[in-house]
Amino acid sequence: MELWYTEEHTDNVRFGLKVKSHLFSGQSDFQKVDVIDTYEFGKMLLLDGLVMCSEKEEHAYHEMIAHVPMSVNPEIKKVLVIGGGDGGTVREIARYAHVEEIHMVEIDKMVVDVSREYQPTMACALDDPRVTLFYEDGIEFVKHKKNHYDLILVDSTDPIGPGEGLFTKAFYTDCYDALTEKGILVNQNESPFYETQRKGMLRAVGKNKEVFPLSKVYMFHMGIYPSGLWFFGFASKGLDPVKDQQAEWWNGLGMKTRYYNTDLHKGAFAIPNYVKELVEGNE
Amino acid sequence: MELWYTEEHTDNVRFGLKVKSHLFSGQSDFQKVDVIDTYEFGKMLLLDGLVMCSEKEEHAYHEMIAHVPMSVNPEIKKVLVIGGGDGGTVREIARYAHVEEIHMVEIDKMVVDVSREYQPTMACALDDPRVTLFYEDGIEFVKHKKNHYDLILVDSTDPIGPGEGLFTKAFYTDCYDALTEKGILVNQNESPFYETQRKGMLRAVGKNKEVFPLSKVYMFHMGIYPSGLWFFGFASKGLDPVKDQQAEWWNGLGMKTRYYNTDLHKGAFAIPNYVKELVEGNE
Repeated sequence: MELWYTEEHTDNVRFGLKVKSHLFSGQSDFQKVDVIDTYEFGKMLLLDGLVMCSEKEEHAYHEMIAHVPMSVNPEIKKVLVIGGGDGGTVREIARYAHVEEIHMVEIDKMVVDVSREYQPTMACALDDPRVTLFYEDGIEFVKHKKNHYDLILVDSTDPIGPGEGLFTKAFYTDCYDALTEKGILVNQNESPFYETQRKGMLRAVGKNKEVFPLSKVYMFHMGIYPSGLWFFGFASKGLDPVKDQQAEWWNGLGMKTRYYNTDLHKGAFAIPNYVKELVEGNE
Repeated sequence: MELWYTEEHTDNVRFGLKVKSHLFSGQSDFQKVDVIDTYEFGKMLLLDGLVMCSEKEEHAYHEMIAHVPMSVNPEIKKVLVIGGGDGGTVREIARYAHVEEIHMVEIDKMVVDVSREYQPTMACALDDPRVTLFYEDGIEFVKHKKNHYDLILVDSTDPIGPGEGLFTKAFYTDCYDALTEKGILVNQNESPFYETQRKGMLRAVGKNKEVFPLSKVYMFHMGIYPSGLWFFGFASKGLDPVKDQQAEWWNGLGMKTRYYNTDLHKGAFAIPNYVKELVEGNE
């Protein structure tokens, strides 16, 4: 017998992966949580039936969400991760010895528990003494913080289900207020390629621009996400992700990465014309 | 009834597209040729059951194969396209008024005929007076040319079937000899993401480096190709694709493009670390 997992990337596009075994299936208060082991991508975490990350390529996602902002401001000391229950984003941030405080606010404890058990290479830094986990709603959490974090990373699901409130102006405004003077926000920003994800991308970009003086998007490759072309948003109170990039400083750290490097960092902001037009037309 | 086209990206990964209609099916002397109309990608050309191009995103491929080398040397006058029967590559080259001669060598006349009928927006420049079509084997054709072309574009299928001989040292050596002093060769260079395509990529890179003093790869996004991350090779007798890029000149042409721009051109050569390691480890 062959087991295949099939994801509908749009109503008209299906992506199928041959599965070795279905390791976990549970229903939390918020969503369905599954772990499968696949021949091509290794172990994968799924939320409400959509792939979040895989052993094969989680590095691309987690390195790009973390090292792009970290290399723009070497003075980042306090970091808030919203979502990111698999632990991969915290793992990358925890590699910086100068970071003093990492708060992770994940609404769904089951995601963290499952990641600890099935994806220990991602969850490995969650017990770092600088890390505090809050099993709360990130939207509520951030309302009560003022001028506190140097960096906020919104490592969210798609703008449906628990992730929906993370794509609103009210939420970005609260993030702005929670950030210090040189604050940066990076958020999971969907993809412009299929209409199914384009709406979420344009919504995030539009709301973001209403709140932050600087707001850009940058791209990276994720083979398991619809079309393979994915984006993060970079918003700040002033720092520019390319002009203010401290490439020499970052390279001096000698950090080994599988996907990220300081040239690719610059290149990631040089986006295709059709994406530029979409993003700029959204102002 | 629903009609779905499914491509096996690897033995363990399937990509499926909902089909409106199957417009053409033929067997040439070289391969099976099909045209389907899909809901998400519009009309698509398939050779031996593999997608070559689609209405939705052929621009990414054809702009990236053509404008990257064209913007590096504004004196390119004579261009050879090997393969490229759909006509998209010739269309992009024909947009340059200063180009005097475009030779296209396509082994399979059926591909050209089918493209003229079903993909006229791609085949539209094949009747340009500067274009000459040769229905011959590109490998043989290039053996008889010396110091003639300023640019050779190898717009080939995968290294199986008719495309196989285009991934050899003998072929690249003949291309080198067919090129003028400032000659550039760009070739379809597969993808490093899945092992299924990685072998072809490393083979092309390896052979290429044995022949040309400068050999690099650059990336672009193709949602219909396996994983979405795809590469071209850029080889030359000396010109560097980034340092010698004539961005100001190219932007002065006022050419409208949907994917390519001169910043993205630079960014495309800033490749992920794991790809760098693969390509450099192959020397």
